[in-house]
Parts: sequence; C-alpha cells; structure tokens
Amino acid sequence: MADELSSLRNLVERVRVGMLTIADPAGMLTCRPLQTLELDADARLWLFVSVGPPNVEEMSHAYRRVGVAYSDRNKQDYASFSGSGAIVRDEAKMRACWNAWVELWFPRGIEDPDLALLCVTVEQADYWEAPGSASRQFRRK
Amino acid sequence: MADELSSLRNLVERVRVGMLTIADPAGMLTCRPLQTLELDADARLWLFVSVGPPNVEEMSHAYRRVGVAYSDRNKQDYASFSGSGAIVRDEAKMRACWNAWVELWFPRGIEDPDLALLCVTVEQADYWEAPGSASRQFRRK
Repeated sequence: MADELSSLRNLVERVRVGMLTIADPAGMLTCRPLQTLELDADARLWLFVSVGPPNVEEMSHAYRRVGVAYSDRNKQDYASFSGSGAIVRDEAKMRACWNAWVELWFPRGIEDPDLALLCVTVEQADYWEAPGSASRQFRRK
Repeated sequence: MADELSSLRNLVERVRVGMLTIADPAGMLTCRPLQTLELDADARLWLFVSVGPPNVEEMSHAYRRVGVAYSDRNKQDYASFSGSGAIVRDEAKMRACWNAWVELWFPRGIEDPDLALLCVTVEQADYWEAPGSASRQFRRK
C-alpha cells in the first residue's frame, strides 16, 4: 500500500492540476480543473475550491462522491482517485497550503470568503503507466 | 456554438487521451484513460472501449451518464465534457477509426470480441484556457 501511495503521490506532485468530477443535481457528471495541495499519508487529497453562493452544507452534499483524475501525457501516465469529499474551512491549513500557483487560480487570496479546502478521503485509486497497461491499484483497507 | 466546438475539437485532437468517468454500481465515481477517436460535427465524442464480460445492455446502463476530461498541462488548457454514452458495435466505423495509437491500447486488434465503440452525446462542455480563468462553454440546444 505504501508503495502504491508513493507512486501516486509522485504523479500528483508532478501534474498538480487534477480534474475533479462530481454529479450535479440532475445526475450529470461535470468536471473542472483544480490545483492539488497534497496527497497526505492517510491517502487524503487536499484541494482548494471555491464554495460560491450555496452554503457549506449544500456544497458538502455535492462533494460527497468525487472522482479526481491526473494526466501526464508527456509520460503517458494517468491516475484516477475515487472517494468522498468534505468541505473544510481550516484557516491554519489554508495558510500552510497557500502558494504562488494557487494564487493564479484564486487571485483574491486567502481572505476570499468563497475559498475553502476540499478534503477527499480516497477509497480507491488506479495508476496506469503506459497506454492500455493494467493499472496499479490502491484500495483503502 | 460552432466556434466553441472547434476550440474543443482542437484540444481533443491535441490531447487524444480522455479521462472517462462513470458512476459504478455503488455510486463511486471511477475514471480511466481512453484514446479518443473524434469529436464529430454533432458534438458526439467517439472512443474505443473494452466491454468485457458483462453484456452490452449492462454496459450501456453503466455509460448512460459520463464525464470525459482532457488536460494539456504544457499549455494549461483543460476541457470537460458531460453527456450520455451508448455502446455501439459498428464494425465499419470501428475499421474506419482504427489506427496505430488505438492498437497500443487494444493490441488484440479489431477482431477483439470485447472491443466496442462508446458514443457520447455531449450535453455540455467547458473549456479553460488558463488557470482560474472563466470557462468557454458549449451547451447543446
């Protein structure tokens, strides 16, 4: 498990921008690019998200099932993460994660009232290192 | 609409490998890389898929709602497609779409009994040309 997680972390840190998919209220699967902060030792992905006009509870519902995909087409490496997301407003963590890349996505900075953290508890992940190859798998015990 | 479609087609043809997300029976959003054949003039994405042991009806059910994401991290261009998928076994179309890239993913070739086409009727698509920028949108009328 530690091995799979470390390969996945290597790809996430190289690619950084994940494509986050959620189901919208009509059941449509919609996706958008998001800057990834870290894949931590407990197999949780951390990303900054804009929570916009709906409140945190509504947003948490929208994020209860998420997929996050990473593509490095130069190397033909691909990874998929599936899990459950939660909106977290932890200002200390937000400050610790802030960097110049994130600022490109959220130019209003850490004071942006719409800014929050999305924490994805990864249930399963797959990692493909070549076209059509079998994936290496991470499964939460 | 033609403009948006043409920008999206340009990105799809450059990136080629899409990350396809579907909901599994447990509601988990799972994703995998797939070689894209074309984004046609009716805003339908065509991809080769392996339909595996379940039958075509079961697979068609699994693909009724799909998301497909494309990332060009060199240019920081990203696109998301949402729509409904259908499994199509059209041998003439399969032969017309076959190429050396597809063969890397499906080495058993066009005779592979598990090989089928996935046709995604795109209902909406978004295209981001820079980090954090507003997306350009395609919406089916």
